[in-house]
Amino acid sequence: MVNNNYRSKGKNKIRVIPIGGLGEIGKNITAIEYKEEIIVIDCGISFPDVDMYGVDLVIPDITYLLENKDRVKGIFLTHGHEDHIGALPYVLKQMNVPVYGTCLTLGLVENKLQEHGILADCTLNVVKAGDIVKLDKISVEFIRVSHSIADACSLCIHTPIGRIIHTGDFKIDYTPIDGEVIDLERFAKLGGQGVLLLMADSTNVERPGFTISEKVIGENLKKIFYKAEGRIIVASFASNIHRIQQIANASIFYGRKIAFSGRSMERISEIAMDLGYLHIPAEAIVTVADLHNYPDDKVTIVTTGSQGEPLAALTRMAASTHRSIQIQKGDLIILSASPIPGNEKFIYNVINELFKKGANVIYNPTEEIHVSGHACQEELKLMHALVRPKYFMPVHGEYRHLKQHALLAEKLGMSPDNIFIAETGQILEVAPSECRIAGRIQTGAIMVDGLGVGDVGNIVLRDRKHLAEEGILTVVVTIERESYSIVAGPDIITRGFVYMKESNELINEARDIVRKELEQCLGNKIKEWAVIKSSIRNALGQFLYIKTKRRPIIIPIIMEI
Amino acid sequence: MVNNNYRSKGKNKIRVIPIGGLGEIGKNITAIEYKEEIIVIDCGISFPDVDMYGVDLVIPDITYLLENKDRVKGIFLTHGHEDHIGALPYVLKQMNVPVYGTCLTLGLVENKLQEHGILADCTLNVVKAGDIVKLDKISVEFIRVSHSIADACSLCIHTPIGRIIHTGDFKIDYTPIDGEVIDLERFAKLGGQGVLLLMADSTNVERPGFTISEKVIGENLKKIFYKAEGRIIVASFASNIHRIQQIANASIFYGRKIAFSGRSMERISEIAMDLGYLHIPAEAIVTVADLHNYPDDKVTIVTTGSQGEPLAALTRMAASTHRSIQIQKGDLIILSASPIPGNEKFIYNVINELFKKGANVIYNPTEEIHVSGHACQEELKLMHALVRPKYFMPVHGEYRHLKQHALLAEKLGMSPDNIFIAETGQILEVAPSECRIAGRIQTGAIMVDGLGVGDVGNIVLRDRKHLAEEGILTVVVTIERESYSIVAGPDIITRGFVYMKESNELINEARDIVRKELEQCLGNKIKEWAVIKSSIRNALGQFLYIKTKRRPIIIPIIMEI
Repeated sequence: MVNNNYRSKGKNKIRVIPIGGLGEIGKNITAIEYKEEIIVIDCGISFPDVDMYGVDLVIPDITYLLENKDRVKGIFLTHGHEDHIGALPYVLKQMNVPVYGTCLTLGLVENKLQEHGILADCTLNVVKAGDIVKLDKISVEFIRVSHSIADACSLCIHTPIGRIIHTGDFKIDYTPIDGEVIDLERFAKLGGQGVLLLMADSTNVERPGFTISEKVIGENLKKIFYKAEGRIIVASFASNIHRIQQIANASIFYGRKIAFSGRSMERISEIAMDLGYLHIPAEAIVTVADLHNYPDDKVTIVTTGSQGEPLAALTRMAASTHRSIQIQKGDLIILSASPIPGNEKFIYNVINELFKKGANVIYNPTEEIHVSGHACQEELKLMHALVRPKYFMPVHGEYRHLKQHALLAEKLGMSPDNIFIAETGQILEVAPSECRIAGRIQTGAIMVDGLGVGDVGNIVLRDRKHLAEEGILTVVVTIERESYSIVAGPDIITRGFVYMKESNELINEARDIVRKELEQCLGNKIKEWAVIKSSIRNALGQFLYIKTKRRPIIIPIIMEI
Repeated sequence: MVNNNYRSKGKNKIRVIPIGGLGEIGKNITAIEYKEEIIVIDCGISFPDVDMYGVDLVIPDITYLLENKDRVKGIFLTHGHEDHIGALPYVLKQMNVPVYGTCLTLGLVENKLQEHGILADCTLNVVKAGDIVKLDKISVEFIRVSHSIADACSLCIHTPIGRIIHTGDFKIDYTPIDGEVIDLERFAKLGGQGVLLLMADSTNVERPGFTISEKVIGENLKKIFYKAEGRIIVASFASNIHRIQQIANASIFYGRKIAFSGRSMERISEIAMDLGYLHIPAEAIVTVADLHNYPDDKVTIVTTGSQGEPLAALTRMAASTHRSIQIQKGDLIILSASPIPGNEKFIYNVINELFKKGANVIYNPTEEIHVSGHACQEELKLMHALVRPKYFMPVHGEYRHLKQHALLAEKLGMSPDNIFIAETGQILEVAPSECRIAGRIQTGAIMVDGLGVGDVGNIVLRDRKHLAEEGILTVVVTIERESYSIVAGPDIITRGFVYMKESNELINEARDIVRKELEQCLGNKIKEWAVIKSSIRNALGQFLYIKTKRRPIIIPIIMEI
């Protein structure tokens, strides 16, 4: 926690502080400071790890920003994915600063802030690629890039002592659906003028070659649609507007009506159409409720659930719990997405159920029905070659991604001394003459569970894990103060441990052990409940482990009357 | 549960009953009946699903076999992987029948039975590829195949009315490490003589092309070893003897000593060397404890942990909790295995930690440091083309695998009427003139948790899931019978719900609600504890949900004195 109150204004240096997103997937947020000014790049959530039982989402700990609230001049968004904008409502509630982003990005933010009831209080500034937002000494330039969501930008932070380029999430698509090709010229020009530090997306650094163009997916979808004789149901990420455009185009080409299913799909497609990012003639769109008016070979359903999420529309269709769509023989289902690591089993369950119901399912990576939104090795090399930065810090990824990206930069001729694999919270001090890790700020993962923000922490999680694996056993006894004797109990209740009904004998033996232990304690006139409870816990724990090789949480409760 | 007591002896049909392994990965076990005889193919476990909290392993429900104990003539093993032999100790304890398998397979079984203390009571019959075990009317022939463990076989079940071929797990490797090429000639010959039913491995049916030869991995390992300047640590599956042979060969080639680390790696390599499947000169092997006597560039450590298993050796090295091996800068770590779906995150965690400690890690699929043990599409086509069965039942895989395998057989010209996608427990009646699904037996998944076999069932699991996601809240109160009034409590204790310390107010309010609810019940002279408990549970549940949007398990305990 050094440097927490450190102020860089005295020194002529830029401080780059990743508050999230390094050494992890998601929760992307970075502070950049020069003298009195701080700007923030992105403000994302991450999804809970498997061992974060019951947690809905994870937001960054922004203690550092709150401590320097008055210096924060704005939050600049690269694009509208959850891992870049999802934490905004939580952060803006604590720190109301202006937000800058492109039209689609802010359209998605607007919707989010409305749901949290704070839209009216927030300042959203729409910019477009090419714009430069001038603050006091810092200016922030938005540069067009390709990604799996429309209207994505890299940022160039101009300061009096040099430029920093933060790529955001990007890939290079020479034939994007909206014709908005990545602004390679601008990257080249800035590279020519000199870039102090490059911070570049590392998500796909493990993949050789180039990401194929989104346009190829459109052509493949058309070929697949051609052969379909029944309904077509396509699952994809709701925010992948270009994918949805191509699904719509293929549908219209074959005279199919389009229906959107799933809350986020309906919501995001509406926003994208309102803002002019998604172009579908009104007469081509029908509601799910109206689908029965059309023959099966004249409809396409675009749905959520490509990750097998338990509550998503496709998952409910597969489980026969969807209110209005029943899977039937002849349906063609296309999973136009690839599994996010950890989701494989859920997705496969959905596929199995769809097949069982007689549908045909296309999900195989060999079919080329999905492309990634992130740059592969050859694209990353191009970005490095254009920007030619003095220093480099890989961002967006687990440690292995950052490491591989550092190795890639080395192979391109960069000195290892100029490459910085930083951790979330580490401060990178950048100046034309020197760049170094200089201290650390407080960072962390704040867990959101239901309405609780931060009230589930490591102790609660540790208990949940223990409960999940071993269950719990509560033993209750009432003791009379006067006579110092047991007047009720011991009673034993378990959950998640053994079938109570079939383990009568075990529970009876356990009760005897508690009684014996307790009587011994009372006989010895031990008056401290903590000591008695600990004796019960030990005796019982040992007995149960010998009998079952399990260690449930044991909670002794002593009532005194 | 029809046909449970049905006996096929009256009819001239073969009954094929998958007791596990269809519509699931693992737990492979199949009964084949002809007249009075039943033989069993394999006897495997499966690993618990993500939602089987705390479960160690899953074994098949063999009620059907136990009910027909006297007719079961033997268990025939195709190879020594856990999903084919792992349930043997549990099954043999209930039903002592002879076991048949090749030398390595039984070597591994022996070790397993010894651990369970039942080896002396069991009958293990060693056979070799080409052998035919003659029973009364049934004969079982072992046919050499390639797989990711040595000494694997397909089985041909000869009956008076026709042959059934069960491939077991297989692939086609023309250049296997031990020179024991799959016996294509025998499959072709049996095909020529006529095969009634083929049951074939579906694991890799989604992959086009051919599996590359294990030998290629050896060549790639040699290239990688060439460049290594420090220690080499290779993680692989302990049972992949041929992989270990190649790691040893490459090590010896460069003058490196070999040390085995991890319990199963030490155990299985010892068995394989004893039985002559793994050939390493004694002077090339050292113990982990002796490693410090050799320079870093003269040692190779072969270890478990390729799946990021929490207790495996490599995981402990990565976490710095390994007793004797510390990861250091310059170590080269090779993950010679691919992730089993669901294990990705654990493996990536291990890789991240290894990189952080300064090691270089090779794990990328593009490096070709691992091949699968299962046949891809072109290999499956070859098997179908050689065997040319009258009927076909895909086995080993989830529904999507079975479905894809059925489609593959159709594409090869087989009539869909002759293809049977069965579920675990369904009975397939096979005769030369007809084949059909005819009823179902009792099957299921028996969960093993610690010493308990089957004492964790769906209710316990449902509770564990609930506990994991929402936690538990216990409320205790002591009531005096006479006065019908509260004499102690209500006390509230939670685990996995909220931080007790920081949620004082919430807990106090909750206590007030319980007291009020209880006093009302007592005032109304309600005498049934069940009714009172239910009132408390409802009132408290509603209050907590409004306050937190969480639904912990609520356990009201009323003590009466």
